[in-house]
Amino acid sequence: MRRYWIEKKDLFQDQVNFTGDVFHHIFDVCRQEIGSKFEVLTEDSKAYFVEVTHVSKKNATARVLEERIIPALKEPHLHLVLSLSRFPVMDAIMEKAVEMGVTSIQPFFSEFSFLRKGEKLSDNKTDRWDKIVKSATQQSGRGDLMKVHPAIPFEKISDLINRNGSGVGLFAYEGPSTLSIKEYVSKVKADHPAGIKDVWIIVGSEGGFSHREVEEFQKLGLHPVTLGPQVLRVETACMTLVSVLKYDFDLMC
Amino acid sequence: MRRYWIEKKDLFQDQVNFTGDVFHHIFDVCRQEIGSKFEVLTEDSKAYFVEVTHVSKKNATARVLEERIIPALKEPHLHLVLSLSRFPVMDAIMEKAVEMGVTSIQPFFSEFSFLRKGEKLSDNKTDRWDKIVKSATQQSGRGDLMKVHPAIPFEKISDLINRNGSGVGLFAYEGPSTLSIKEYVSKVKADHPAGIKDVWIIVGSEGGFSHREVEEFQKLGLHPVTLGPQVLRVETACMTLVSVLKYDFDLMC
Repeated sequence: MRRYWIEKKDLFQDQVNFTGDVFHHIFDVCRQEIGSKFEVLTEDSKAYFVEVTHVSKKNATARVLEERIIPALKEPHLHLVLSLSRFPVMDAIMEKAVEMGVTSIQPFFSEFSFLRKGEKLSDNKTDRWDKIVKSATQQSGRGDLMKVHPAIPFEKISDLINRNGSGVGLFAYEGPSTLSIKEYVSKVKADHPAGIKDVWIIVGSEGGFSHREVEEFQKLGLHPVTLGPQVLRVETACMTLVSVLKYDFDLMC
Repeated sequence: MRRYWIEKKDLFQDQVNFTGDVFHHIFDVCRQEIGSKFEVLTEDSKAYFVEVTHVSKKNATARVLEERIIPALKEPHLHLVLSLSRFPVMDAIMEKAVEMGVTSIQPFFSEFSFLRKGEKLSDNKTDRWDKIVKSATQQSGRGDLMKVHPAIPFEKISDLINRNGSGVGLFAYEGPSTLSIKEYVSKVKADHPAGIKDVWIIVGSEGGFSHREVEEFQKLGLHPVTLGPQVLRVETACMTLVSVLKYDFDLMC
């Protein structure tokens, strides 16, 4: 079934109003018409099954036939902390991360990131990420919008991890690692018998991390992990890490 | 370090000859020159570290400075059996599957596949997949070329699974499942104390599988698995399944 993301203000009691870009997408591009049925999603983590009752040139209305609650993402929440890569790579990661249930993405500038500290990330790019997130949310039927935070300098990562306490996290690294991902996860589970709220997954850009950065991560209690003998592209490393953590923390069902 | 895939015939004793497309790629596109050092990979699962000794208009030579063996993929080997999806999706899966260490891809025609039985898969497409496989092999430093088999009709899948005996495999399915992936993997490990050689991962195209197809898979002893509450795109489902199976079978290190 088709699903569309709408702003909450466009839903009033059992009626949905479509205008602007959303109207254009649903009625001009997807060619929905009077009598069409589909789901709309909005910020209240509900999906509304609606039927179109009225269409004019620039707006349309639909009435809600049924509603269902979309369960929230389970804990631990997975956060991708991502050194800025080339934009097509960032775009791909945004899309996949929404589908796979990543809670938030925090881009950062690092020594080898595609953009360096001081360079500006254009509003175009961040608007584009918002669109990708909405579109992937519709497609995957997720009940919330993944948060994409503004890019931060490397030095702010420690604030982020410390502020959020638990310090459970790992970073993809091609060098030696004392514990495999499996061993690390089993250790942190044992260390946190009351459960873990957040897991930080740090992935470098095409150039990897500098020695200084690796040392900083280790000081923060983050654990280096390798993903096997082959060299993975950035987006593949992200997806692999998210997949196996979801799996090991039983977030897949 | 840059790596290039060459044909075995172009390596003779400690000298490598570059001609044709490979020459064009390395010397015109990547602008390598006399004195440049890089690795070449070939079918014998070795990587040769070479230095360019001679470059002319249409060919070049390099001498081997060092060689190293690239360890073979560990068992169980993972095989993606894939209902033909739209070509951009197939292309993306080919690339990622090489990186992630999938042994082979077997495309097939199913009721809801993008191409239907009887339609022809053009040589262009399969040539394109060969190129993608080579390029991803270079990039990831893998020691063998992933096999992409010619597409088969649905009915031939049973031959494939039966011929290869062990019948350990699963298929992505949105319906109910009695065992989670984790439970299934732990069951098959217990059922095969001597180890498992091959695991078959069956993934549908955008339209999923028909009831008849699901029944057939179950008759073959394949297990239905769900990947969580969100609807995953075909390429995301493939990568997630490959990731978690690699993880659970300890193929990541």
